[in-house]
Amino acid sequence: MSADRILDIAKRRGFFWQSSQIYGGIAGFYDYAHLGTMLKRKWESVWRGFFLSLDDNFYEISPSVIMPKNVFVASGHLESFVDPIVKCVKCKNVERADHLLETQLKQNFEGISIEDIEKLIKKHNIRCPKCRGELREIGELNMMFPIEVGTSDAAEAYLTGETAQGAYVNFKLEFDCLRKRLPMGLAVVGKAFRNEIAPRNMLIRMREFSQAELQIFFDPKKINQHPDFRKVSKYKLRLFPVKNRKKNKINEVSCSDVVKKLKLPKFYVYHMAKVQQFYLDLLKLPHKKFRFRQLSDEEKAFYNKYHWDVELDIESVGGFKEVAGVHYRTDHDLKGHQEISNQNMEVSADGRKFIPHVLELSFGVDRNVYALLDLAYEKEKGVRDVLRFPRMVSTFDAAVFPLVNKDGLPEKSRELQCLLVDNGLKVFYDASGSIGRRYRRVDEIGVAASFTCDHQTLKDNTITLRDRDSMKQVRIKLWDAPNVLKRFLRGEELPKLGKPFK
Amino acid sequence: MSADRILDIAKRRGFFWQSSQIYGGIAGFYDYAHLGTMLKRKWESVWRGFFLSLDDNFYEISPSVIMPKNVFVASGHLESFVDPIVKCVKCKNVERADHLLETQLKQNFEGISIEDIEKLIKKHNIRCPKCRGELREIGELNMMFPIEVGTSDAAEAYLTGETAQGAYVNFKLEFDCLRKRLPMGLAVVGKAFRNEIAPRNMLIRMREFSQAELQIFFDPKKINQHPDFRKVSKYKLRLFPVKNRKKNKINEVSCSDVVKKLKLPKFYVYHMAKVQQFYLDLLKLPHKKFRFRQLSDEEKAFYNKYHWDVELDIESVGGFKEVAGVHYRTDHDLKGHQEISNQNMEVSADGRKFIPHVLELSFGVDRNVYALLDLAYEKEKGVRDVLRFPRMVSTFDAAVFPLVNKDGLPEKSRELQCLLVDNGLKVFYDASGSIGRRYRRVDEIGVAASFTCDHQTLKDNTITLRDRDSMKQVRIKLWDAPNVLKRFLRGEELPKLGKPFK
Repeated sequence: MSADRILDIAKRRGFFWQSSQIYGGIAGFYDYAHLGTMLKRKWESVWRGFFLSLDDNFYEISPSVIMPKNVFVASGHLESFVDPIVKCVKCKNVERADHLLETQLKQNFEGISIEDIEKLIKKHNIRCPKCRGELREIGELNMMFPIEVGTSDAAEAYLTGETAQGAYVNFKLEFDCLRKRLPMGLAVVGKAFRNEIAPRNMLIRMREFSQAELQIFFDPKKINQHPDFRKVSKYKLRLFPVKNRKKNKINEVSCSDVVKKLKLPKFYVYHMAKVQQFYLDLLKLPHKKFRFRQLSDEEKAFYNKYHWDVELDIESVGGFKEVAGVHYRTDHDLKGHQEISNQNMEVSADGRKFIPHVLELSFGVDRNVYALLDLAYEKEKGVRDVLRFPRMVSTFDAAVFPLVNKDGLPEKSRELQCLLVDNGLKVFYDASGSIGRRYRRVDEIGVAASFTCDHQTLKDNTITLRDRDSMKQVRIKLWDAPNVLKRFLRGEELPKLGKPFK
Repeated sequence: MSADRILDIAKRRGFFWQSSQIYGGIAGFYDYAHLGTMLKRKWESVWRGFFLSLDDNFYEISPSVIMPKNVFVASGHLESFVDPIVKCVKCKNVERADHLLETQLKQNFEGISIEDIEKLIKKHNIRCPKCRGELREIGELNMMFPIEVGTSDAAEAYLTGETAQGAYVNFKLEFDCLRKRLPMGLAVVGKAFRNEIAPRNMLIRMREFSQAELQIFFDPKKINQHPDFRKVSKYKLRLFPVKNRKKNKINEVSCSDVVKKLKLPKFYVYHMAKVQQFYLDLLKLPHKKFRFRQLSDEEKAFYNKYHWDVELDIESVGGFKEVAGVHYRTDHDLKGHQEISNQNMEVSADGRKFIPHVLELSFGVDRNVYALLDLAYEKEKGVRDVLRFPRMVSTFDAAVFPLVNKDGLPEKSRELQCLLVDNGLKVFYDASGSIGRRYRRVDEIGVAASFTCDHQTLKDNTITLRDRDSMKQVRIKLWDAPNVLKRFLRGEELPKLGKPFK
């Protein structure tokens, strides 16, 4: 399926579209419409529920997105958060150098040096794609957005480039405030900003985007252990190591073998397993769409000792794309902040003083939302267009229909709607058109469950529940609807036709 | 209670603190720590649940916070979103003029003109509070933060000053995407940014802050009706009209009398009632702490035809302070966007073409969170410090304690904790210190319910549930804990000692 098709669905049905488009918009900015917002909020809520309950010392915090300059001096963002660029001497057009080379030479040039860019441009006589002018001024562009705060005594500040820094600058305060014990996790679900030269692929590379990141601070001496490792030791990870790139092969390797053969520490591997379980066991995405991609030394940030990305196979943007990452950042960040802020980042534990190390579980929220939309879309020829979202993130919690718009059925349906809303469930009510057409309409926006009130409802207070995926229906008691729905959304199978859940 | 006391509690227990404080921070920026984040998230979730279910055509959307310049030309922010300032000729210090006059002359000068500021400064010979230098350059400062996006073709953009604009620029797209019917509501829960000259009172006036706003687009011909008005007609609003200011008196007036005597339209009054119910019936804040304050013509924005603020009595910052507002913005915003964007904002309904009018329910999230903290704090002399948050927003959902840290009680307690976590509840587990001290500890962070496993638990699988407010305990079945807790958090009374809920 093409990217255009996704954008069309996203626009027509109300998932996302170009931001401020009545003014022409700005590249790299998208607004979530009402369905997209539901999907995003649900994904965030499932993410929080899963990752914050991994340890009862894991918490969410909400730092400011505007932070003073020194934060990014310490983090290295001001020095090294740069993209290689080339500028056309004639039309002044600026292009991202590695992307331009990729387009022209059909090869991946991520991480290429300025010198090599210069050489390749000369060798292949690459010119401005807009005006064929000469490309000179090869250099680097910092992606941070500067902000001036205040007036006479204006403070130099920046919009944060990653939510992680908000966790690091709060580390010591939270450590003292909580129980002074490791591991301690600080999650941030919020916005980050990068002045990308070449935003592209809709939600995949934006200038304003959302991240969900969990920073786990731990004792580096304990990196080879995790109290629950035995629970995942036989669980198989889907790995795409650097050495497999040529033959494009994914290996399924048990966690204990990953530790033994790939020499990855248990603390790291345990969290890889949890990340994979989030995608495959909780969201129930298809296994073959998921892999951990090992980054080569040239690709990974210099401060990451181990770096495997989570990639999902997103057809509309050309295959496997990064949606999350498991990064062992060592003590790089806390050490940097200690140096620049002159605040001691050491903690005392087990009779030693040391700077904790950080394992970061980093998720691009928008990329994940986009992937859900891409993976969910199915055209059942001659039957219907359906969005098969995982039930627990499927836009509305349920649809409610009166079979016909008379005979007291609308009143009964509104009663059911109130019951569901009172139980905190978001309902799509629809009384217009044939029931078949209404089912198609909710299939198209991905609602997993539809309840219909019919004439039998008036006799015995039972209603039908229709499953979007199998299109099967069962009859349940109206008053059971909230509980049945909650269990259905958690992933339980529908009971046999006519038999109630419990 | 003093503001310092609140700040101290907020810092020590983990609600909020100065942002990036290891670098000295910047005035007007605060980070939410782990408890503050829980409180904020819960408040937002209760807000969404209540306001989005007022009508099944009300939805949340998530627009970008960076928007192109023309958005703010159309909205008037670039022209009139200004604060009056004075600058010291000697030390270059910039002060907010109305605040400076207020401090010096002990009077409120909100909305004062530049000419009057000049006169008063001369008349009273007011000088720079920092160096006693002469104050000249009296003028206005725009509060929008400019952002340059892109490189060679950099687009002029701004961080949004209110979430409302994100709803207005998306209005037509959503109207077409939804059912093309009015009223339609678009809510945004997100960040906004203002370069305040004088941020103050901690979370009350920040430079980066969160809003929860619902923009209700409706047919202006129907402003004197609402289908559910009869349900609130006898409900009494707590009003503080302009004419009551001298005698400082709040009137309790039924909605139907507000319509008759104050000549406010039913559509407006219905939503005032809903806003008051959110505070008094849902969150159950004390009635006397709440009032609707009518703004005088000088105080309200020129585009608001009716403007009543919600004020809560927040002792630590000096009494009643604005935390929300009910604004009838007419067609000011859509008309402005139609003019600048050249996009038609009219809709067709009831055989007419017209630009919808807007009723805005606007809430400052941080101010509400701060108010919750202020209102919740109670020092019971000789007994305990307690934060009596409304149950449905009280930080952790529950605490779980083993009575003693042996005899298999910790294992049993962990079992209970898992049961609660599996039901989506956030649990504070604590096994250290005497049970009395542990109760005090959760009282101090405002956890409404504590479960304790004791020796009887091992015999009959029952546990105690302790109510933070009454300090009473009841014994319930361990397996009932998730359901009992959910009902307790919704506000149900504790059953009599020993009797189960159901």
